[in-house]
Amino acid sequence: MKISIERGALLKAVSQAQSVVERRNTIPILANVLIEAEGNSVSFRATDLDIEVVDKTDAMVERAGATTVSAVTLHEIVRKLPDGALVQLTDDGATGRLAVEAGRSNFSLATLPKEDFPVMASSEYSANFSAPAPVLRRLFDKSKFAISTEETRYYLNGVYMHVADADGGKVLRCVATDGHRLARIDADLPAGAEDMPGVIVPRKTVGEMRKLLDDDDATIAVSVSETKIRFATPAITLTSKVIDGTFPDYTRVIPTGNTRKLEVDATEFAQAVDRVATVSSERSRAVKLQLDEDRLILSVNAPDAGAAEEELAVAYGDERLEIGFNAKYLLEIASQVDRENAVFMFNSSGDPTLMREGNDTSAVYVVMPMRV
Amino acid sequence: MKISIERGALLKAVSQAQSVVERRNTIPILANVLIEAEGNSVSFRATDLDIEVVDKTDAMVERAGATTVSAVTLHEIVRKLPDGALVQLTDDGATGRLAVEAGRSNFSLATLPKEDFPVMASSEYSANFSAPAPVLRRLFDKSKFAISTEETRYYLNGVYMHVADADGGKVLRCVATDGHRLARIDADLPAGAEDMPGVIVPRKTVGEMRKLLDDDDATIAVSVSETKIRFATPAITLTSKVIDGTFPDYTRVIPTGNTRKLEVDATEFAQAVDRVATVSSERSRAVKLQLDEDRLILSVNAPDAGAAEEELAVAYGDERLEIGFNAKYLLEIASQVDRENAVFMFNSSGDPTLMREGNDTSAVYVVMPMRV
Repeated sequence: MKISIERGALLKAVSQAQSVVERRNTIPILANVLIEAEGNSVSFRATDLDIEVVDKTDAMVERAGATTVSAVTLHEIVRKLPDGALVQLTDDGATGRLAVEAGRSNFSLATLPKEDFPVMASSEYSANFSAPAPVLRRLFDKSKFAISTEETRYYLNGVYMHVADADGGKVLRCVATDGHRLARIDADLPAGAEDMPGVIVPRKTVGEMRKLLDDDDATIAVSVSETKIRFATPAITLTSKVIDGTFPDYTRVIPTGNTRKLEVDATEFAQAVDRVATVSSERSRAVKLQLDEDRLILSVNAPDAGAAEEELAVAYGDERLEIGFNAKYLLEIASQVDRENAVFMFNSSGDPTLMREGNDTSAVYVVMPMRV
Repeated sequence: MKISIERGALLKAVSQAQSVVERRNTIPILANVLIEAEGNSVSFRATDLDIEVVDKTDAMVERAGATTVSAVTLHEIVRKLPDGALVQLTDDGATGRLAVEAGRSNFSLATLPKEDFPVMASSEYSANFSAPAPVLRRLFDKSKFAISTEETRYYLNGVYMHVADADGGKVLRCVATDGHRLARIDADLPAGAEDMPGVIVPRKTVGEMRKLLDDDDATIAVSVSETKIRFATPAITLTSKVIDGTFPDYTRVIPTGNTRKLEVDATEFAQAVDRVATVSSERSRAVKLQLDEDRLILSVNAPDAGAAEEELAVAYGDERLEIGFNAKYLLEIASQVDRENAVFMFNSSGDPTLMREGNDTSAVYVVMPMRV
């Protein structure tokens, strides 16, 4: 293999690949990136056995070939090379080293045989559709905070993406929950997604695929099978196993009979919650909401450290209510609101509360109360 | 006590104080800041028993008084209040709480008696002088990287500030070393510093006082005794114990007979060292310098990971030399050079090497070689 490639293009390709690589590996080859040069392009492939990412970019290929080197070391070297440098990668096979040359810098990196690299088996996908990057970004960005980190409830360690029935017909839906709060985000169903099996996309995959979604104009090709999901742009293909489990019936958790309605400026609300929570040293300390006619009093009482109280002007016309929530959960949910006022729908102080943005039911959040 | 103060002024005063407070305290009052209001100003005092900082600021004092509250909690609250808010601090004595009010936010913080707060005993200082902030900044910024972190060599855990003889007469000098490298920085001797005892300023004090030095136009009043040092601006007074020990005779470490001279662009040099060091996973891996007529080859050889080599055009007219250094030490020393080329003076591959900026002898660095 012998290729020349501009430093910027190389850095971009290697960055995405190395981020999938786990820092602590017991299998040495998993620390490596597989470099394959052919035609007029080169691909960089990395895997942790659950996720595989392939990043393809143009290069001047003088001699086709393939090898593997440490993803982290290659990334560090390329990052430190001066902007605009032309980088040459040469693998002569005999020495078992990959030469990296740029200007007056010369590196020779240890390689491992390309044959040992675990390439993910290709799959038959039962659904293929494409979606604009902003649509997928919204689905995952607004749901991922609710993903559970409890390993024993492995079926909650991801975002459940599936086809669901909503008021206006079928939708593409993402749901995540950790038992304390839940996010349910809907988008128009893309053509071709109708028969998609419901899949639980693991937390790490959500993070890695998120990097594909930054470009507002990008269209992402999505392929789904019972066991795998693939996200692809022309340059990057990310394939991931999905979580082998059954996502619980979340519909039972979403309250439908809550009638007490609070409308509040989401930013003001979040800032006030953040302030009153300051006096509590414990992260899980409850914030108490006291609701009265067009008035909300937020308060925290931490006997050893002190107390805090803040009043907000809100829209509330129902009977008095006192209800407590974990401050962190309230903050996370309030910070999802980006366009409109936050609307909270309460029942009693012991029942789950629903939150949405204005009258938009395509993004709905549920949070369990705490006793205060 | 009852005072009103603008949020920005309060935040600045509390920030400096809370940063001295140790996060883990066995003595509860050390987590607190002592607030004293009198006349038309309020002061915030915090200590870790080794360093005391007092930050004084204007305030509307309606009722004089003093109390103590958690420095971290007060800082967090003030930080989260909206910019421009007027903050009222009220301590009515009876409840044992300090009320913090701003707009519709109300906090009530637990207090501890002001009598329990350990105010640092005042000292007789044997030297008082003042120096422009940029002068002190240079003395400490350029030396602090060499402070030892080895607790057993406690007398190296700070910067040795003293009066010394240099070519042009007496100077104010800061020296730090960890046995592997040394920094010696000189400044003109300020009037009044002539009889200053040499003192070892502890690492934490160097960090805390550094915040006083950001303003280019500030003049800092410095007072020194055998046991304490004080840095003061009109608003902030920082008093610190000095390290009770004898700084070793560093002059013996600074080579005087090194004749082989290398002149190199400091930025190019640092970037090249950083790049070649990438292939070594161990932080302490040696970088080899091969010097020949106007040519420097930097190289690293890490048998398991690979090798790296980079050539630099330099000014060098002496006989061939091969010498190795810890990459981290070389980088830190090269990054001290901000105006001119770095000049290295070598003797043999086993002897300490001297580095300075151009022909300026007011900042001199020594680094021990490593066998390569």
